[in-house]
Amino acid sequence: MPRNLIGIDLGGTKVQGVRLDDSEIVAEAKLPTPTGGVAPVVAAVVECVARLGGTGLVDGLGIGAPGVIDAATGTLVRAPNLVGFDGQVPLADLLADSLELSAAARLVVDNDVNAAVVAEHRIGAARGFSEVLGVWVGTGVGGGLVLDGELRRGPAGVTGEIGHVGVALDGRRCRCGLTGHLESYAGRSSMEVEARRRHDAGTPTRLVELAGAKRMKSSVFAKAVDADDRVALDLLDEAVEALGVAVAGAATLIDLEVVVIGGGLPGKLGARFVDRIEQAVRRRLFVRTSTLSVVPAALGDLGGALGAALLASG
Amino acid sequence: MPRNLIGIDLGGTKVQGVRLDDSEIVAEAKLPTPTGGVAPVVAAVVECVARLGGTGLVDGLGIGAPGVIDAATGTLVRAPNLVGFDGQVPLADLLADSLELSAAARLVVDNDVNAAVVAEHRIGAARGFSEVLGVWVGTGVGGGLVLDGELRRGPAGVTGEIGHVGVALDGRRCRCGLTGHLESYAGRSSMEVEARRRHDAGTPTRLVELAGAKRMKSSVFAKAVDADDRVALDLLDEAVEALGVAVAGAATLIDLEVVVIGGGLPGKLGARFVDRIEQAVRRRLFVRTSTLSVVPAALGDLGGALGAALLASG
Repeated sequence: MPRNLIGIDLGGTKVQGVRLDDSEIVAEAKLPTPTGGVAPVVAAVVECVARLGGTGLVDGLGIGAPGVIDAATGTLVRAPNLVGFDGQVPLADLLADSLELSAAARLVVDNDVNAAVVAEHRIGAARGFSEVLGVWVGTGVGGGLVLDGELRRGPAGVTGEIGHVGVALDGRRCRCGLTGHLESYAGRSSMEVEARRRHDAGTPTRLVELAGAKRMKSSVFAKAVDADDRVALDLLDEAVEALGVAVAGAATLIDLEVVVIGGGLPGKLGARFVDRIEQAVRRRLFVRTSTLSVVPAALGDLGGALGAALLASG
Repeated sequence: MPRNLIGIDLGGTKVQGVRLDDSEIVAEAKLPTPTGGVAPVVAAVVECVARLGGTGLVDGLGIGAPGVIDAATGTLVRAPNLVGFDGQVPLADLLADSLELSAAARLVVDNDVNAAVVAEHRIGAARGFSEVLGVWVGTGVGGGLVLDGELRRGPAGVTGEIGHVGVALDGRRCRCGLTGHLESYAGRSSMEVEARRRHDAGTPTRLVELAGAKRMKSSVFAKAVDADDRVALDLLDEAVEALGVAVAGAATLIDLEVVVIGGGLPGKLGARFVDRIEQAVRRRLFVRTSTLSVVPAALGDLGGALGAALLASG
């Protein structure tokens, strides 16, 4: 197994990198994600790699990126969270041209949630398990699936997208254009739309008062909940119920050992939010004797970069 | 691979058996399922085996049974459709005592839908695919999952139970006691309950007129649909929508190549019913470019017995 690895979590707001030497974190780096299109983003990744000590001794470099990724070719098929990434972007090829990687070094590009789930599976909250679903609750809701100890990719290369699993026959409109998806109840962006709608319809909420015209961050939800804001509590109740339906359904369909809940919203709302999700799941499990557990992610913000590095270890 | 195999589909109403010699069907047998408890049912299976020529040359004997099965030990954990099967029934052990199987012969007991899905995968509608979901729509809704070409069993041994995946946040009561499950919309037993409720509430329906006090069979639904009965059409519309939500969700979560629709209801309602399910699924797919296809089962009534035989081939 390669010992000198770099992992980069290429997010919509920041590029976060980590360097591992023999599984030990030896360097970290973070810089803002440029919004000027593909070339500045590639340059930012190259800069992040330089701050981590460069590629001289590196056996593997992994990138986790948001959206639909063709991991076989390292191409971003659809990455709406990266400004200026229209159409397909062959990120692995572009990086190979810009970085001086040795011929033997591996370069992999994969979905950011897949990377975070791999990290939780190998060195985090799901360590020791082989049947794992990761559910990442942030702006949207993403997921990743580990079966028989391996990250599942599936024939179309898009697996584990639990955010776009239906939980209601006639439900809220999802950002993807369809209706009734988990993300339309539990994704922060959809919850913001719903909070503003209720606020405008005559139910004032701290969520809108705190966020103003800005994006309604996870910390805004945490503050409104602390203030017992009715709309915030209702929206989170609905999110928890929707997560209960979707995760219990996944467990009933696939038979899982553990579900890891990660992402910005659980990060800010804390263990109690994950406990509530576990209860909502347990109430809905078809196999009553199931030993399924629902646990919070253990690696926090660094999980994506760590997972990207681990994916590059082969 | 063993060449002389017997497969038995042990159903709630009939025991159906098939004998394969080098993948060729050389004998078939069918008798009614006794309702007097475990011993008469074991005797009926033994009789079915005798009618198929006995165990003399048999390399493998497979039984497909309804309910929750522990395939590792051949135990029926919960089989509500078999009268008098209360508590756990060690069917494999009971049969091993009653049948003269050679020491080298395999004896396997598995879920009946798992068996039917294995048959469709190896020699039926899903032949040549490796990522397959089978959805069996009858009294209830069952399912089976083939991933990487192998029947998935999962850590708890209960995989593919799509009938008990939630499709509604606050939905109909399911036979299992929970709410909003696919089966509560698409299972014939739940549809019968709903039809009688609507009939009693003042919306008369051919379904109740045709069935009277008897069980509302799939053929009754087919006749009521042919007569343009409003309640029957509405119930089937709702079943199709629920199947659309559940199957599209499964495809989004797992990434599948093909979904096979089997069971009594599609058998009676014909190809148009499966076409409608495919359209309902396609409208809801997150990956718009997905090449997922939804196809009717090809092996009909004999699939369960054939699959049981194939499961015994190792």
